Amino acid sequence: MDFVLGIDGGGTSCRAAVARADGVVLGRAKAGAANIRTDLTGARTSIVEAARRAFAEAGQDPDLVSRTPAVLGLAGANVGTYRQQLQAILPFSRSRVETDAEIALEGAVGAGDGAMAILGTGSAYMVRKGGKSRAIGGWGFQVGDQGSGARVGRDLLEQTLLAYDGIREASPLTREMLAVFRDRPEDVVEFTTNAKPGDFGGFAPKVFDYAQKGDAVAVWIVDRAVADVEAALGALDLSDDAPLCLLGGLAPLYASRLSQRFRRLLREPLGDALSGAVRMAARAFASPQGGGNS
Amino acid sequence: MDFVLGIDGGGTSCRAAVARADGVVLGRAKAGAANIRTDLTGARTSIVEAARRAFAEAGQDPDLVSRTPAVLGLAGANVGTYRQQLQAILPFSRSRVETDAEIALEGAVGAGDGAMAILGTGSAYMVRKGGKSRAIGGWGFQVGDQGSGARVGRDLLEQTLLAYDGIREASPLTREMLAVFRDRPEDVVEFTTNAKPGDFGGFAPKVFDYAQKGDAVAVWIVDRAVADVEAALGALDLSDDAPLCLLGGLAPLYASRLSQRFRRLLREPLGDALSGAVRMAARAFASPQGGGNS
Repeated sequence: MDFVLGIDGGGTSCRAAVARADGVVLGRAKAGAANIRTDLTGARTSIVEAARRAFAEAGQDPDLVSRTPAVLGLAGANVGTYRQQLQAILPFSRSRVETDAEIALEGAVGAGDGAMAILGTGSAYMVRKGGKSRAIGGWGFQVGDQGSGARVGRDLLEQTLLAYDGIREASPLTREMLAVFRDRPEDVVEFTTNAKPGDFGGFAPKVFDYAQKGDAVAVWIVDRAVADVEAALGALDLSDDAPLCLLGGLAPLYASRLSQRFRRLLREPLGDALSGAVRMAARAFASPQGGGNS
Repeated sequence: MDFVLGIDGGGTSCRAAVARADGVVLGRAKAGAANIRTDLTGARTSIVEAARRAFAEAGQDPDLVSRTPAVLGLAGANVGTYRQQLQAILPFSRSRVETDAEIALEGAVGAGDGAMAILGTGSAYMVRKGGKSRAIGGWGFQVGDQGSGARVGRDLLEQTLLAYDGIREASPLTREMLAVFRDRPEDVVEFTTNAKPGDFGGFAPKVFDYAQKGDAVAVWIVDRAVADVEAALGALDLSDDAPLCLLGGLAPLYASRLSQRFRRLLREPLGDALSGAVRMAARAFASPQGGGNS
């Protein structure tokens, strides 16, 4: 029997799934971080460990990894020569390294044309048209990631300080935020000095919540965030008949707020990024008769 | 003969001026950093050293510091109990600790009503009306300092990445900026990861320069920055007959761009922050007859 492997590796963990040559998943497993930019050999260790465990989960010999082809989706695979460096040291019979976005898109919309917006702590976009993919955004919240949780949360703190100074009208939301910081703007500033994207992003759901209730500052922030997301979607030049998937924690909050032009393209994602890697592996490495070519 | 001391202390250095009781400066000197928030005793050392050197510069005995009253302007003096802690350990005959903004305002507009906007790497505002001062802004570029060099520079990098992604139209300025980073958006992101406010602010003059030439992105950024500065000035509730001084490296660039409502209030500053501290000391500690009361 022939197998294929799908791998989804990121900064916190690495997931693997082993499947039959036709793509039916037999076993899944997880291992530690796979960050190819900061620790290439450590990433290799996590990848191999996750793959071996997936074989064990499927009731198969873990040593089969060396006879199995794999598609890997990894953050940072599009930067520098990390992709080539990793491919050179992987133990699989054949390896194809893609970006994390590429396997996420495949997982969400399948093999055909389509697009996705990842709207979580960060934001990023990818479109596939006529088999050709293009990614935009994802540059981090400091000078990018418009519409992300980190940006929405940071906007809230900024508007809270402007309200404190009387430069803009306060609202129930800004008053509540200031109270979180004991009504001391210095404490807001202190917080921002070392805040990570996720720390800012933690405030984002509250902004959407208050916007729903008509809070003026929340509505102002969300309107701008929605406009930023629509501007990015506009730059993707979407087809009228290809699916658009919103992924990430803020996806449901944005879905209802997009204009009709984009809303009518929205589809539920077919599966997650790992399922995308498996599907790509089945397509890339299995013959039409279902036999492997490794 | 009686003397007064003015002290202007900050995170990089501490300046002192010794003056006659009527405010005529006799000697000036400088010493190391005086950051009362991070190193109170080190700040005291720098303050005393600068004061002793100022006496030496004036051809007077440095030991006179213990018989001389002083007004000190120090960043952070409005936070927590730093002001009281410092006053308790200063060696002067009498000490009055003010914020750096307070002595800068006095230096710029004198003892009467007036206002200032500090527009440099950061931004901050202060107004004095009927003898009562109010400061706004100055919360740092992460969630404040609108219109500052750091914000203008950060905006430029953000717009450069949006242009790269095709989300907004590129301009000569965004193309030049991208070329600075070898046309690699990853390098822009890398730069922002560890950039200090001054690193972002370094790009601000270029933005104003290109705005002058009509560059669409530069004009967009500068228009927004001017609107932010005007919103802050609006919150100061300025009198029709009190002077407004713009201080900091971007002051001349903003002066010509403000609307008539604010432009007609603009005056050249009378002097710097140190001269403000001296003037406050002469007023606070010298009798109308010119005799000291220390």
